[in-house]
Amino acid sequence: MSEQKSDPEGLDEFAIIAKYFAPLSEASTGAVGLTDDGALLACENVVPGSQERLAVTTDTIVAGIHYFHDAPAKLVAQKLLRVNLSDLAAMGARPYAYNLSLAINDRVDHAWLGDFAAGLGVEQKNWGISLVGGDTVRTPGPVTLTVSMFGWVEPAKRLLRSNARPGDIIYVSGTIGDAGLGLKILRGEIEAGGAADVEFLKNRYYLPAPRTKLAAAIAELAGSGIDVSDGLVADLGHICQASGIGADVKLADIPFSEPARRVIEHSNLRDDACLDLIASGDDYELLFTVPGWHGGEVEAVCAGLKIPVSPIGTISASGGRVRILDTNGQEMKIETHGYKHF
Amino acid sequence: MSEQKSDPEGLDEFAIIAKYFAPLSEASTGAVGLTDDGALLACENVVPGSQERLAVTTDTIVAGIHYFHDAPAKLVAQKLLRVNLSDLAAMGARPYAYNLSLAINDRVDHAWLGDFAAGLGVEQKNWGISLVGGDTVRTPGPVTLTVSMFGWVEPAKRLLRSNARPGDIIYVSGTIGDAGLGLKILRGEIEAGGAADVEFLKNRYYLPAPRTKLAAAIAELAGSGIDVSDGLVADLGHICQASGIGADVKLADIPFSEPARRVIEHSNLRDDACLDLIASGDDYELLFTVPGWHGGEVEAVCAGLKIPVSPIGTISASGGRVRILDTNGQEMKIETHGYKHF
Repeated sequence: MSEQKSDPEGLDEFAIIAKYFAPLSEASTGAVGLTDDGALLACENVVPGSQERLAVTTDTIVAGIHYFHDAPAKLVAQKLLRVNLSDLAAMGARPYAYNLSLAINDRVDHAWLGDFAAGLGVEQKNWGISLVGGDTVRTPGPVTLTVSMFGWVEPAKRLLRSNARPGDIIYVSGTIGDAGLGLKILRGEIEAGGAADVEFLKNRYYLPAPRTKLAAAIAELAGSGIDVSDGLVADLGHICQASGIGADVKLADIPFSEPARRVIEHSNLRDDACLDLIASGDDYELLFTVPGWHGGEVEAVCAGLKIPVSPIGTISASGGRVRILDTNGQEMKIETHGYKHF
Repeated sequence: MSEQKSDPEGLDEFAIIAKYFAPLSEASTGAVGLTDDGALLACENVVPGSQERLAVTTDTIVAGIHYFHDAPAKLVAQKLLRVNLSDLAAMGARPYAYNLSLAINDRVDHAWLGDFAAGLGVEQKNWGISLVGGDTVRTPGPVTLTVSMFGWVEPAKRLLRSNARPGDIIYVSGTIGDAGLGLKILRGEIEAGGAADVEFLKNRYYLPAPRTKLAAAIAELAGSGIDVSDGLVADLGHICQASGIGADVKLADIPFSEPARRVIEHSNLRDDACLDLIASGDDYELLFTVPGWHGGEVEAVCAGLKIPVSPIGTISASGGRVRILDTNGQEMKIETHGYKHF
C-alpha cells in the first residue's frame, strides 16, 4: 500500500538509517552499513572448537504501554537493549549483535532519534555488541520498537526453565521490587521519599542490570533459570509450569533494597506493600534453581563476582504453583501475581 | 509499565502463544515450544564443510499502511513471510527459520489469529522453514507485525547491491507492475477488467513469488542483485548508489504481463500508465546485473529452471542514476520513482 508523503523534517527512511543507525553498525562487516537487504551473522565468531549455537531473543515495546510517551529517548534505547541482554543472560548466552525495527510517528523528530541512537551507542560499548540490521516504517499509532538480539551459547550450558527439581534451592540476584517502586514514583502514585532513594529507584526502572556474567558463571551448577521480567512470583511460576514442580518461597528471605524499604515506610503504601513488589516486575534479576549440593559452590562463585544472590526458598514436588510463606510457614494470600501482558 | 487488563476473549499472551504459535515451532528443537526466553539457532544446520553464514532480514508491516485493515489474515501472514523470503533470496540465501513479533489490538480476535497462523503454516510447508521465537504485546494503535528471517549463505555467493559494473546487463525476473495494478484494483481506483485478469493481479499483490531458486542459481554468475520491493526504478537506483554507477533501461524491454496490459487498455488509466508500473513496487521480482560474457549462461540457467528473465538495459559508468529510455533512445521523464517509506 505505497503511500507518498512529504516530510518537512527530512525524516526519510534512508536518511534516518544513514544518519542515526549506520554508524552503529560499523563494527559489523556483515551488516554492510545497513544498505543491503539484510545482514550476515558471523558463525565463525564462536569459541574455536566449541559447540556454540546462536541464541535469539525478541522484545517489542510500545510507547504509552511499555514506556512513557515522554520518557527520555536515550533511556528508552538503553532499557530496550538491556531487556534483551537480560533475556540472553537467562539463556546463559554471551551477547553478540542485534536487529532493530522502528515504527515511528509524527512525534518523532531529529532530537528524539539522536538521543535514541546515543542510548544504543552507550550500550553497544558497554556490552561489545553492534547493530546488524532492521527496518524503519511509519505508523499512525504509538512508536513501536522491536529488538531481536543474538548471542552465543553452548547448548549444554543453556539455562532452561524446565530443569528445576524437587529439593533445589531457589536463588535470586540483587534486590526485587525497586523497578516497580520506581515506576510508581514516575507515575506520581506515591509520595516520594529522600531524593537519593527516589533517584536510585527510578534508575532501577530505567536501567536494569542484565546478569550476563552471573548467568555464565553459574550455568553449569544451576538447574533452571529465568530473568525476572513479569514479577518474581509470575516468573517463578513459569519455572514451576515448565518443570512440573512447585515452589515454596519465604517472604522474609526475599531481598529488598534499603531505598525500597525506606520509601515504603515513608509513603502512603500499606505496611505489607512488599507483597506487591514481588509481583511488580521489571527487575531483570536472575532467578535460578540449584541442587542442594551445589549451593555452597554457587554462593562462592557469586561472592567472587561480587554479585549478591539470596536463597529465597526451595522447589517442592507438589502442585506446579508458587507459595509465599510468612515467618510462621503459613501460606500468604497474594492478590496480584505479576505482569499480565494483555 | 505493567498494566492489568481483563480480556473477555481470553486473549492472554501465553494462551495465544500456546494455541496459535507453539504448533508452528514444533520442527525446531531450539525453540523449546516458544516457552523459554529465546531460541537457539542450529549453526550445525549448514552444508557440511562449507563456509555458510547466517543471513538475517527484517520487515515490519503496519495495518492500514502496509496492508488493508480488512485484508484476509491468512494472506497478510503469507505475504509477510514471502516478503522476507524475497529479501533472503536477494542475498542469495536459502531460508531456514523466522522470528515473529506481534503488536495486536482489540480488533484482533480468535478468528483473525487462527487465519493468520494458518497462513504462516502454509508458507512454512512451502519453504521448509519454522517459527523459532518472538514476542506478543498489546497496542492501542494499528496491528504491527515484525518478522526477522534467517537463512544460510556462503559469503562468496552473496548477492550484494554494490557489485554492479559498467557494461553489465541488467536482468529482471517475471513481470513488473502486476502488484501495483492489483493494489489499485483493491483500492477501487481503477475500473476492473475481466475477472480472471483482476484475480491474477490481486493475487500478484497478495502472494509475491520469492525468487529463491533463481537467486541461488545465478549467484555465481551475477554481479549485483536486489529484490524489487520499492519499485523497479527505485531499487535499480539503490544498486546504482551502492555501486557508484548508472543504469540505462529501455521501457520497451521491461516485461509486463498480458493481464496488466489488458487492464491498462480497458481502464481509465492513461496510455503510458506503464511508466507508473515501473515505480509501483511490491513486485518482489529479482533484479540483477550480469557481466556481458555470462549473459548467455544466465539465460540458459533460467530457461532450465523455467523462470522467465528479461534483459532490460545496461549499466553505465556515469551518473549514479537510472535513465528510462524510449524507443528512440531518448530519456523519458518519470514523475514518481518508487515507494517512499515516509
